[in-house]
Amino acid sequence: MKELKIFSPATVANVSCGFDVLGFCLDTIGDEMVIKKTNKKGIHITKIEGYDLPFEPQNNVAGVSALALIEDAKPNFGFEIEIYKNIKPGSGIGSSSASAVGSVFAINELLGKPYNKTQLTNFAMKGEALASQCEHADNIAPAIFGGFTLVKSTNPLEILQLPTPKDLFAVIIHPQIEIKTSESRAILPKEISLKNAITQWSNVGSLVHALHKNDYELLSKSLTDVVIEPYRSQLIPYFNSVRAEALNTGALGCGISGSGPSIFSLCHGNETAQNIAQAIKNVYSKTNIPFEIYISKINTQGIKIL
Amino acid sequence: MKELKIFSPATVANVSCGFDVLGFCLDTIGDEMVIKKTNKKGIHITKIEGYDLPFEPQNNVAGVSALALIEDAKPNFGFEIEIYKNIKPGSGIGSSSASAVGSVFAINELLGKPYNKTQLTNFAMKGEALASQCEHADNIAPAIFGGFTLVKSTNPLEILQLPTPKDLFAVIIHPQIEIKTSESRAILPKEISLKNAITQWSNVGSLVHALHKNDYELLSKSLTDVVIEPYRSQLIPYFNSVRAEALNTGALGCGISGSGPSIFSLCHGNETAQNIAQAIKNVYSKTNIPFEIYISKINTQGIKIL
Repeated sequence: MKELKIFSPATVANVSCGFDVLGFCLDTIGDEMVIKKTNKKGIHITKIEGYDLPFEPQNNVAGVSALALIEDAKPNFGFEIEIYKNIKPGSGIGSSSASAVGSVFAINELLGKPYNKTQLTNFAMKGEALASQCEHADNIAPAIFGGFTLVKSTNPLEILQLPTPKDLFAVIIHPQIEIKTSESRAILPKEISLKNAITQWSNVGSLVHALHKNDYELLSKSLTDVVIEPYRSQLIPYFNSVRAEALNTGALGCGISGSGPSIFSLCHGNETAQNIAQAIKNVYSKTNIPFEIYISKINTQGIKIL
Repeated sequence: MKELKIFSPATVANVSCGFDVLGFCLDTIGDEMVIKKTNKKGIHITKIEGYDLPFEPQNNVAGVSALALIEDAKPNFGFEIEIYKNIKPGSGIGSSSASAVGSVFAINELLGKPYNKTQLTNFAMKGEALASQCEHADNIAPAIFGGFTLVKSTNPLEILQLPTPKDLFAVIIHPQIEIKTSESRAILPKEISLKNAITQWSNVGSLVHALHKNDYELLSKSLTDVVIEPYRSQLIPYFNSVRAEALNTGALGCGISGSGPSIFSLCHGNETAQNIAQAIKNVYSKTNIPFEIYISKINTQGIKIL
């Protein structure tokens, strides 16, 4: 195999109660990339469509993660990368992770799979760090492993693959506003009350239990965030209205996707997902803010070859 | 049925990462109680052996929880309670919970089981509140439900029964020192760093996952407490030595049981439990502090009729 095309999915990190540790994978939105073996050593980004991103590998998220991999693998050939970017950078649904994951996944395939998923996560984290100034895996892990993931620890890196209930759908609204990552980080408190922390870890525990038990009701009760959302939701116009409408229309939960501005809802079944999407559309149509809405089943496979 | 005898087990709350929400049930140590229907209405404590506790129902933990139950059930008869107390009050292995649970469990049986386990937990929490000045369920829930439990919320009360891996044993050392509950509460910070909170909820999530997957290695990695233990362990002499020896001898984890002074270790299999008990005994035998050591399989049944 000398060349392949891959689909690198968007992802939702945090999932309300699981700030910095939980995430899940989407399947109707993602980037495509074509990777080719070349005689010329190194990483060469030859095409970028969709968004304006740097071509120099060391300044490009997909380039940095690919460089981290080949620095370890030391192949006596190189790779050309074409990036067809569908996930808008800064949308809060793992745009940089999709780039970071795509190149390392594809190169690993072309090398004959010398690395396992955890090792690929490690390489991809180097790319993610270029975009977010810190190495974290809460978007990368679900993109690589699929389904729901829990980042047990980053040093050493340990990813847990959680079960995904059948018929679980996500609805994402991406209001086309810019929230600077630095701002969405800076707004967070350094310290939180022990009381809120207890609520949060009880919810993380019950969410994991709910996934194992296929218990939608418990999942719904676990999807709350008393720690981060009160701060970050202020940066997202009409967040409360979107959530109220989503919950009224049958959503199990609704929260900020990653650091926003995207908002995710989870629900049981495609029909409810369609209804929620319509209800949210009604909210945002009354504003002057452009937006995109996506409906997606939870993607249990993760990144894949097309 | 006019009379019955029950075994009300000791329990371990918090379980390292799960402060205020996690707990598990023991089976080799617990109180016994005899409850009899009587024509005389109300709750009448007729015998207390083992420790010096008040006979007035409104001042006795078992009495208060029983009163809460009969206030709701309004039977046209009463109950006599005999308490054979084996769990020392203030030991940190759920002494007051065992009392609170015992009376309501037995009375419920004698009434023909009108209440479910969650309702019994609610009544027992009234008794627990007399002892600890706040209504919490992290010892009561495992005593009633057995195995590992997670208190998802107290208002409304929701208890999750977690799976218990086979062959999981606990070793408990109870150093016979007094730690005032007020002191062990007062020493805790009101605020904690977001960083530590994230570590804690990642561990709660992975602990729940480990229980579902019967994964002893992951269970071991999850049994850490970066929030509470650094404070409370200072109140327990030789805590660090006990833990070091327990871990060296094969314990999966070792932490403070409830608010202490008891220390629990979890391990795989009875033989390892015996070795850990011996190793801990060696540590404490060199001190002048009297102590008790218990070895117990995790009790998946909870409170029972003898």
